[in-house]
Amino acid sequence: MRPIKWDNQHLRVLDQRLLPTRTKWIEINCAEDAFNAIRNMAVRGAPLIGIVAAFGLALELQKYTPMSKEELIKKAGEIKDYLSTARPTAVNLRWALEREVEALQNADNISDAKEAVVARAVELMNYEEQTSRLIGEYGEKLIENGDTILTHCNAGSLATVEYGTALAPIRFAIKKGKSVKVIATETRPALQGSRLTAYELMKDGIDVTLISDTMVGYTLSLGMVDKVFVGADRVLNDGHVVNKIGTYQIAVLASRHKIPFYSAMPWSSVDMETKLSEVRIEQRNPLEVETVKGRRIAPKGVKVFNPAFDITPPELVTALVTDRGIIYPPYSKGLYEAHKKGSYQPVIVSG
Amino acid sequence: MRPIKWDNQHLRVLDQRLLPTRTKWIEINCAEDAFNAIRNMAVRGAPLIGIVAAFGLALELQKYTPMSKEELIKKAGEIKDYLSTARPTAVNLRWALEREVEALQNADNISDAKEAVVARAVELMNYEEQTSRLIGEYGEKLIENGDTILTHCNAGSLATVEYGTALAPIRFAIKKGKSVKVIATETRPALQGSRLTAYELMKDGIDVTLISDTMVGYTLSLGMVDKVFVGADRVLNDGHVVNKIGTYQIAVLASRHKIPFYSAMPWSSVDMETKLSEVRIEQRNPLEVETVKGRRIAPKGVKVFNPAFDITPPELVTALVTDRGIIYPPYSKGLYEAHKKGSYQPVIVSG
Repeated sequence: MRPIKWDNQHLRVLDQRLLPTRTKWIEINCAEDAFNAIRNMAVRGAPLIGIVAAFGLALELQKYTPMSKEELIKKAGEIKDYLSTARPTAVNLRWALEREVEALQNADNISDAKEAVVARAVELMNYEEQTSRLIGEYGEKLIENGDTILTHCNAGSLATVEYGTALAPIRFAIKKGKSVKVIATETRPALQGSRLTAYELMKDGIDVTLISDTMVGYTLSLGMVDKVFVGADRVLNDGHVVNKIGTYQIAVLASRHKIPFYSAMPWSSVDMETKLSEVRIEQRNPLEVETVKGRRIAPKGVKVFNPAFDITPPELVTALVTDRGIIYPPYSKGLYEAHKKGSYQPVIVSG
Repeated sequence: MRPIKWDNQHLRVLDQRLLPTRTKWIEINCAEDAFNAIRNMAVRGAPLIGIVAAFGLALELQKYTPMSKEELIKKAGEIKDYLSTARPTAVNLRWALEREVEALQNADNISDAKEAVVARAVELMNYEEQTSRLIGEYGEKLIENGDTILTHCNAGSLATVEYGTALAPIRFAIKKGKSVKVIATETRPALQGSRLTAYELMKDGIDVTLISDTMVGYTLSLGMVDKVFVGADRVLNDGHVVNKIGTYQIAVLASRHKIPFYSAMPWSSVDMETKLSEVRIEQRNPLEVETVKGRRIAPKGVKVFNPAFDITPPELVTALVTDRGIIYPPYSKGLYEAHKKGSYQPVIVSG
C-alpha cells in the first residue's frame, strides 16, 4: 500500500482522490506537478506531502542550468517558497524542503549539488519509512490484546511512505499477535476515513468498522472504543496538536469518556518554533462541503465554512507517539528533551 | 415550505430525499404508502411522520367495510401496530396513531367513526402547526439580537407542518426584528442539514452557513456560535433527549465552551412513560454510510455501524423549548408539571 514509487529518475504517486474505486498513478516530473498533486490532494498526509515536495524540488533543479552553485541555491529557494504554499498547515512540507536546500549547500559544485538533491529526496523517503516503523514499534506497547481503536482521517500507509503514523502501532501490535479492531470515522469533507483508512486496513485484513463523523460521541458512550489514535499535521512545542478537522471534537469526547487519546507523528511534524497564534489553518474550496464525488448535496450559493484542520490543546492528549519515543505531559519538557536528541540524520533502509 | 398537502380526500407529501435538487410530491393513499414514505425517509422529522402515519391509518380505514365498530377498531389496531414499526425511535408516530384510535372509539357508529379518523388526522396536522407556532413564540425569547445559532439535522418546516421545532424560535426572532444567523451541520449520513436546513432557510432569506459534521468543535472553539438549538425525536421524563445521531457530541462540545444548548419539541415528542434503558435506537441500512447519492465512498464489504439517533443526558441540556413553555432543570419536576397541564386538545387553526 506504498503510495509513492521512485524508479531512478521517475516519480509516480497514487492518485488518492480516486480511491477506493479506482487505482491510478500520476507522474511527477517537475515542481509544478508536485505542487498540483499536493494542492488538489491527489497526495495528502503530512509526511507524504513533504516527500513529494522534496522530489518536486529535486526534479525541477535537474532541468535548470545555472552559471554557479549560488545561482542554483537561489533557484532552489524560489522553488522551495513556491512549493511551501501548496498547503500551509502541515509543517513537513517546509521541513523536507529545508533538508533539500541543506543538501545543496553542502555540495562542492553544481554537478554534485544536482545529484545531492535527488539523493537527499530518496534519503528523506527512506527516513520517513523508518520513522513510521519506529512509531509503530514504540506505539504498539500502548495497545492491549482485544483493544478497539478509533481513528480519524487517514494516518496510514497512504499518508506516509509505509505503515502510517496512527495506524503503524496498530499494524505492529497485530504483527506481535495482539487482536486489535479499528473504528474509522468517515472524515468529511474529503472522506479520507471511508475512502482510504477503511480501504488500506481491509487490504491488510485488519478488522475495520466505518462510522459517520456524527457517530463518534454515541460510539464512545456505548463503551465500544478503548483508545483513540490519530496522526498530526503539526505539533507545537507545548503539545498543541494541529490535525485534520474533527480531531479536536474527538479529543473532547475521549476526555469525557476517559478514553486515552494518542497522537502519532514523525519528528518532521514537530514544530518547535511556531507559536499557537501564528499557526495558519488552511481554508479550502467550499465545493468540498457542497458536493460529494461531484454530486451536489447542498443548495447552490449556500455559504460554507471549510477549515481543513483544527487544534487540540495538550490537556486532551494522553501522549504523543513519535519516532523518538512516547512523550507524556508536560509536553514542553518532553518535546524539548526529544528535540535535543538531534537534528535530521539520513537513514539508509535496506531491503 | 409546508411539506404536506391535504386536499379533502387526497394527501401529498414532499419527497425530501430529492431535495434540494428536485421537488417531487408523493401521493399517500393507504397505510402502506405512509409506511414506505416514513421508512425510506421520503418524509422525516418526528412531528411530520406522526401526521403522515395518522393520515395513512385514516385513509386505509376508508377502504375497509367492517361488520361492526368493534371490527373497525380491531382493524385500526392492526394498522397502528404496522405503522408504528416504520421507525422505532420517534415517539410521535405512536402518539399520533393513539389519538386516531381514540377518535374512533369516541364515534357512535361505523360511518361516524370513518369520518372521525379523517377529521382527527386533519386536527392533528393543525395541532402540530400550532405547537410549532407556540415553540417559536416561547423560544424566540431565548434569542438575542445578533446571535449566531448552530443547529443540527433538520428541525424546520420540513420536519413538521410549518415553522419547525428548533428553527421556529429563529423564525419568530427574525420576525420580531432580531438579527439572527444560522450555522447548519451537514448531518451525515442522510444529509438533512445540507439538503434541507440550508435549503429551507435560504428560501426564507435567512443567513445560513453550512459546515461538515467534523467542524463543530473548531467552530465553537473560535467563538462563532452563541447558542445551539436542536429538535428532539423523544424526550424522557427525566430530560434525556433522544435526537438525530450527532446531537450528543454537539451537546458535549457546547457544554465545554459554555454555550447554551436548547432542545425544542412539541408535547407529542415527550414520552413520560418509557425508561432510558427501554429506548430503542434505530439501526439503518449500511449503504447510507457507504454511499452518498448513490455513489460509493467506501470499499465494498466494509463493516458499518449506522445508528440513526443518540441520547443526550439532561445535564448537558440548558432548557427544553416546548409548546407548553420553556422547561428548565430539574426536568423531572418541570416536565411533570407541564404534563399535568392536560392531554391532547384539538386545535382549530384559522386561515
